[in-house]
Amino acid sequence: MTEFLLANARLDDGSLVDVTVRDGRVAAVAPAGPAPSAGGLDLQGRLLCPAFVDGHIHLDKTLLGLPWQSHRPGAGVAERIAAEKRQLAETTLPVAERARTLLRQVIAHGTTRLRCHVDIDPGVGLANLHAVLAVAEELRGTIDIQIVAFPQSGILAAPGTADLLAAAIVDGASVVGGLDPAGIDGDVEGHLDAVFGIAERTGAAVDIHLHDAGLLGAFTLRRIAARSREAGLQGRCAVSHAYALGGIDPDEFLRTADALAEGGVAVMTNGPGPAPMPPVQALTARGVLVFAGSDNIRDAWSPYGNGDMLERAMLIGYRAGLLTDQGLRLAFSLATTHAGRALGAPEHGVAVGAVADLVSLDCGHVPEAVVTRPGSRWVFRGGRLLT
Amino acid sequence: MTEFLLANARLDDGSLVDVTVRDGRVAAVAPAGPAPSAGGLDLQGRLLCPAFVDGHIHLDKTLLGLPWQSHRPGAGVAERIAAEKRQLAETTLPVAERARTLLRQVIAHGTTRLRCHVDIDPGVGLANLHAVLAVAEELRGTIDIQIVAFPQSGILAAPGTADLLAAAIVDGASVVGGLDPAGIDGDVEGHLDAVFGIAERTGAAVDIHLHDAGLLGAFTLRRIAARSREAGLQGRCAVSHAYALGGIDPDEFLRTADALAEGGVAVMTNGPGPAPMPPVQALTARGVLVFAGSDNIRDAWSPYGNGDMLERAMLIGYRAGLLTDQGLRLAFSLATTHAGRALGAPEHGVAVGAVADLVSLDCGHVPEAVVTRPGSRWVFRGGRLLT
Repeated sequence: MTEFLLANARLDDGSLVDVTVRDGRVAAVAPAGPAPSAGGLDLQGRLLCPAFVDGHIHLDKTLLGLPWQSHRPGAGVAERIAAEKRQLAETTLPVAERARTLLRQVIAHGTTRLRCHVDIDPGVGLANLHAVLAVAEELRGTIDIQIVAFPQSGILAAPGTADLLAAAIVDGASVVGGLDPAGIDGDVEGHLDAVFGIAERTGAAVDIHLHDAGLLGAFTLRRIAARSREAGLQGRCAVSHAYALGGIDPDEFLRTADALAEGGVAVMTNGPGPAPMPPVQALTARGVLVFAGSDNIRDAWSPYGNGDMLERAMLIGYRAGLLTDQGLRLAFSLATTHAGRALGAPEHGVAVGAVADLVSLDCGHVPEAVVTRPGSRWVFRGGRLLT
Repeated sequence: MTEFLLANARLDDGSLVDVTVRDGRVAAVAPAGPAPSAGGLDLQGRLLCPAFVDGHIHLDKTLLGLPWQSHRPGAGVAERIAAEKRQLAETTLPVAERARTLLRQVIAHGTTRLRCHVDIDPGVGLANLHAVLAVAEELRGTIDIQIVAFPQSGILAAPGTADLLAAAIVDGASVVGGLDPAGIDGDVEGHLDAVFGIAERTGAAVDIHLHDAGLLGAFTLRRIAARSREAGLQGRCAVSHAYALGGIDPDEFLRTADALAEGGVAVMTNGPGPAPMPPVQALTARGVLVFAGSDNIRDAWSPYGNGDMLERAMLIGYRAGLLTDQGLRLAFSLATTHAGRALGAPEHGVAVGAVADLVSLDCGHVPEAVVTRPGSRWVFRGGRLLT
């Protein structure tokens, strides 16, 4: 049995508490004593929060660790996929090294769990998967890395990919991905047959990239929701981006949101720049679980991003117009507890019984944390301070 | 005569130079010598750039310096104006103190010039103006503060305001403001008669807040452009926000952009969150000067913002999808040279003859600066290091 005491921690409600952690979980939360107990770490009134969870990252795509890489433009998703392939083919730094460079940043910012989409197609095969699996194993004590087998070149559009996705699940990916069933594969049902077929055969969860906009995207979302329900995947199915939800009329939106809620389909957003953004508050109000992810970080798709999920919460809140304390807390939840739930992780945070993956921030409460994004952070993994 | 040497500065093109500053202006830029001259400040290869210019800030609105202020929601511009009045009426910390708190942050981030909109209406009269003028005088050696007389409650909607705006120009404001001629005053021509009448009588420049969207906003933009041309105010007239430019069809957009270019009307954007954003690249391509500003910082309108114009350049670039090196440089220019030009300031930057208001950043070039936003900065005012 290992036990830690985190003394004089401030909770989001302003109270000062001593937190006892036993075997990686919070065993007690009590009003702060007059003086910190011997052996306890004194947080001196710093805010203590659930650690960040990055619901969507591409560790195999980042170009971090290389000299500056200028973005090469490409119009449309298909052209940019081709541009990325050329750029990565020229890259001499191995996937594992680039992934490690990014993970060091991610962890320092306070993230202890993430979902990583790994490119799988007939060209790259399972090479990126094996590289990321090895890094995940190296860092197992520090961060939980969940892997999505992601068909970046499509499934029907790149014959052989469906078998590779199934093989990826056997090798260690736990989620099967998808990509624009209409926009890339040109066959909504065919694409979903492949994705949900693999999920049903292997027990994998599902997380589909959907950039397709407007009514086409909304239609696809409802088809995914129906498939999730039919496959009994409620709570284990997600759609990433779902720009369509930000570009349809209120009736179409409600119809689609209700289908997602009924199908137990969560929605990941990174607070996109120019693309329409799913309305976070309206989706939450209709019972849809919304969660946050970084998406592209310094890669062929985007020069932006740094893996800081607190900055991501700010970007999402800013982009969505979340202004009240309640709104700012929602933005924070997207990047912590909501993302944890979407990834099927056990509850974490400052509550008795929860996994003690925590971050301390130098500010008064969560709304202030989102707007000020304090830099100096302590990151706790199962109650243990990561240095 | 005062002379400074900034040695071993890196320019955006990668070259290392020694910069001689004489009487506040750049006197020479020469290849870096083998060793820094005596008396010179060695930048050790840090990037040297034009200092930031904040084209739109509200120093009298910020609530910085007070304990956390929770945002109070209000639907629509009129309701939020009323909510702000109530909140500011309860605020005991004087305008000057709040403004100073924000200015300290702004200067530390590397801004040496800004345009501040100051609320003027029959309730507050010229009190905020006088407070901000006094702070501007205090900080004259450190930062140039240009003041816009801003009719936050409208002009026709708040009788007496037109006279107050004219009086504000006499007292030291150099720009006359406006606010949603249709949306707030319900009389486009009446509002513009007042604004441009004051400009013509006093010689003031013009900067009008325009949130009105879609075809109504586009129509108003074309009316402002025509007024600017008729009044000979080309190059001295700006519209802030101009959300409409981000929400109209391409034909309407081109017609409006060309009118703005012909009228010499600049467009200020802060890279708005949920509101439509003027297309920065398309406007620039049509000859419209686009520039950047912070807008609201920790005030009744928004809990976000910190006065860092490099972060603002990132937000604008991210929001506008500026991904290439050229695009990232454009985002940076909006917050430096473009904003300087929109404010009618003399050229500043690392060029012979330019005012030596500069900032040094710990990175390799401007595109990298925008995405990484290095924290450790040296700020130079007329070549002199601000501590």
